[in-house]
Amino acid sequence: MLNDDWKPSETSAIPLYKQIAQFIKEKISSGEWTIGTKLPTQREFAEILEVNRSTVITALEDLKAEGLIEGKNSGGTVVVNNTWSLLNNSRTPKWEGYIERGIYKPNLSTIQMINKLEFKNGIIRLGTGEVSPSLYPKQAMKKILHKVSNNLESMGYEQPKGSIKLRGAISEYVKKFGIKTSPEAVLIVSGSLQALQLLSMGILPKASTIITEKPSYLKSLHIFQSEGMKLKGIGMDEHGINVNELRNSINKSTKLLYTIPTFHNPTGILQTEERRDEVLNLCREKRLPIIEDDAYRELWLEEKPPMPLKSKDKDGMVLYIGTVSKCLAAGMRIGWIVGPEAVIDRLADIKMQADYGSSSISQAVLSEFIESGLYEKYIEKLRNNLVVRRNITIEILEKYFKHIAQWNVPKGGFYIWLKLKKHISIDLLFKMCCEEGILINPGSIYDFVKNSNIRISYSYADIKELESALKRLSEIVIEITART
Amino acid sequence: MLNDDWKPSETSAIPLYKQIAQFIKEKISSGEWTIGTKLPTQREFAEILEVNRSTVITALEDLKAEGLIEGKNSGGTVVVNNTWSLLNNSRTPKWEGYIERGIYKPNLSTIQMINKLEFKNGIIRLGTGEVSPSLYPKQAMKKILHKVSNNLESMGYEQPKGSIKLRGAISEYVKKFGIKTSPEAVLIVSGSLQALQLLSMGILPKASTIITEKPSYLKSLHIFQSEGMKLKGIGMDEHGINVNELRNSINKSTKLLYTIPTFHNPTGILQTEERRDEVLNLCREKRLPIIEDDAYRELWLEEKPPMPLKSKDKDGMVLYIGTVSKCLAAGMRIGWIVGPEAVIDRLADIKMQADYGSSSISQAVLSEFIESGLYEKYIEKLRNNLVVRRNITIEILEKYFKHIAQWNVPKGGFYIWLKLKKHISIDLLFKMCCEEGILINPGSIYDFVKNSNIRISYSYADIKELESALKRLSEIVIEITART
Repeated sequence: MLNDDWKPSETSAIPLYKQIAQFIKEKISSGEWTIGTKLPTQREFAEILEVNRSTVITALEDLKAEGLIEGKNSGGTVVVNNTWSLLNNSRTPKWEGYIERGIYKPNLSTIQMINKLEFKNGIIRLGTGEVSPSLYPKQAMKKILHKVSNNLESMGYEQPKGSIKLRGAISEYVKKFGIKTSPEAVLIVSGSLQALQLLSMGILPKASTIITEKPSYLKSLHIFQSEGMKLKGIGMDEHGINVNELRNSINKSTKLLYTIPTFHNPTGILQTEERRDEVLNLCREKRLPIIEDDAYRELWLEEKPPMPLKSKDKDGMVLYIGTVSKCLAAGMRIGWIVGPEAVIDRLADIKMQADYGSSSISQAVLSEFIESGLYEKYIEKLRNNLVVRRNITIEILEKYFKHIAQWNVPKGGFYIWLKLKKHISIDLLFKMCCEEGILINPGSIYDFVKNSNIRISYSYADIKELESALKRLSEIVIEITART
Repeated sequence: MLNDDWKPSETSAIPLYKQIAQFIKEKISSGEWTIGTKLPTQREFAEILEVNRSTVITALEDLKAEGLIEGKNSGGTVVVNNTWSLLNNSRTPKWEGYIERGIYKPNLSTIQMINKLEFKNGIIRLGTGEVSPSLYPKQAMKKILHKVSNNLESMGYEQPKGSIKLRGAISEYVKKFGIKTSPEAVLIVSGSLQALQLLSMGILPKASTIITEKPSYLKSLHIFQSEGMKLKGIGMDEHGINVNELRNSINKSTKLLYTIPTFHNPTGILQTEERRDEVLNLCREKRLPIIEDDAYRELWLEEKPPMPLKSKDKDGMVLYIGTVSKCLAAGMRIGWIVGPEAVIDRLADIKMQADYGSSSISQAVLSEFIESGLYEKYIEKLRNNLVVRRNITIEILEKYFKHIAQWNVPKGGFYIWLKLKKHISIDLLFKMCCEEGILINPGSIYDFVKNSNIRISYSYADIKELESALKRLSEIVIEITART
């Protein structure tokens, strides 16, 4: 609420408390803080505005006297009038009611906190599934942006399925992975998250069940649940999803398998070739369509992973999702879906209703990046960096977590799925870490059951920070374990 | 289906018909054309592949012999097997069922056709609500892209509400229109269409009724209806929405007024200051929140329009939507919502679930464009161009439509709402125009009742084309009128 950087001026002729009162008054009179809005605490005000608490108290007293705010017994101070409503007999719409009754569920509160804290200065992000800004290909991107800026003749809406240049580049690019497709069967989306949203709106009836790995990235989202669908989790072993359990779970309401066979999020597991065949055969037998999320494929470390399920799909049974968010730039917001043309057409129509297509600049930049060969070169370099990062992280874990946790050594992707040996409250761990400026992704947000896992990402934080933060994390774990 | 640019090679040793059969086989075996897919007609094949129809027939016969396709009695040829299913006993998922049962409604078929035809070579777009590519500020954009490319240090996810730089720029920018807001109460979205989608998912219960002008741009969308809500249209006069009718329409299920007071789409009507006050007072009295869509504000021609409703909103009653799609570049996919912080927070959370934010490049480019002052300069020039275009278009109408239609002279925006004097089938008109390479936006897609209107846009087509296409349109209208 107080992120505007505004501070009262020490050199002004107007007393500090009056400046503060005026500032709050403007927030209220502009309708930004509506009636019913809870104000920050006196302590928070004092901290953020860098003034004494007594100054804040005086300012608030002034506003109370004007009838704009009221202290409630429960402790908070609340906006009860606005300047307008004092003059007239006006009544603000009750936005709270609107917000609560909306169709979409809010994000999990932990995820809301993570989304927010990621932008806090100085916080060390141990769970972030992104490439570190220090690995961003600044020079290559500069070159591409210059080229694009020289060629850009206009910037209108793109075709419903996305820019034909980019779709052409993608259909060439996925050939590397054994996927044959024409640009007509490719849909450009704003990241793979949007792919899932379009699928939830476009091709599934309300009472559907979607099957996925347990744990799964999908569980941390509300996309399908908000549209009235259910998620069902299937256990995994080191070769991937458990096929027998999968077979037994399929029934009439099962409409889709969502799977991340390659460097799974959050466990890092790489599905074997054999397991892939088993999954494909079972789904073919049961006529169960598959969404294959292949976000991490390019991030193999020592050797290439098996080809995607889509490469063996002769029946148009697999919808394949790719993205550059993980290996190049999340801020580009570009992903793609490859699938049967009729499904792609339907999803393109839904996309036109959702946002009229993805950013033309992003699409132009990415086509150029891929076609110029710079993308390939950049990824090779990135892989080398990630090998180093993974190795160092594993060493750090050996050093500090040997007695308190178990983990996998991932062959690609970003994630180590750290399982604590003793059960402790991960919520408490999350909070205590936050207080010390360390942001972790608790395993609970990905799982169907309570667990004692943490998703550690070796891709984002600086290497030095990785060591200090992981060390501190181990100490906090031991501290909490001792308490319980 | 056949947009890949592939043609059989005349110089190849392989006969043409075999090349074509192989091409189709690949489409089928890759799962791009699934079982059940209807093939193009022989005529279409021949035309697109630039071969004789007999060559096509031979190719199709080959595939029939292989059991891959079948001619149905109803005329079409359909994929009945894929190479895989001939070998194994495989069964493709029935995608058609999935597509039909999805939650979201498909776009109106006319709109799907428009979306597609807009990219057909040589078609004259008489209805397109975009600035002509010839007016695109190429040099200014080049400058900005260079600057951005030099400064871009990374390209990660942005904050949930959007880049703080752009939110800062927007909160400065809307001051021009009397809107006071901090960056905290601004949400960056991927165009104003996405704003509406987030609102439909985030703040409204299923059985809501949304009130809007009759006709309205909103009626051409399915966003609210797909989420189980109803639209109710309120008539307009030359001063804007009819306030008495509005008063009588508000009941318990009415949750929102969606309105375009400034250069309304599709009628071009500019709401007067007085009418704005009446609408605001009524909504305040009834506690009915307002979505004010202000996409066309900057496109005034002779004089500035009255300030937005939001500028007089002291209760946080108005959610204000702005965009650069209409005045700068639709392909940028950037818009914004200004409103009470609690509502903006909620919508930001939904946006994080929909696509994790809008393109970082687009956001960086737009911040720079606005802050550098180039945006302001560009718009001034654009206005001068639009005045010329509007005047010419009105002259053309005077020349050819005097006896067959009525129209308004818009004071801003893009649109002339052409009302035909005699009722004819606008569907037929649409089709006949399409056949002659003229794309019109039939009024029916915006209206709640049958009408004989056409939305003419003077912003997109080349000026020369405007004249030839409007002339031809008048002739076709007369032709159809004579028939009926």
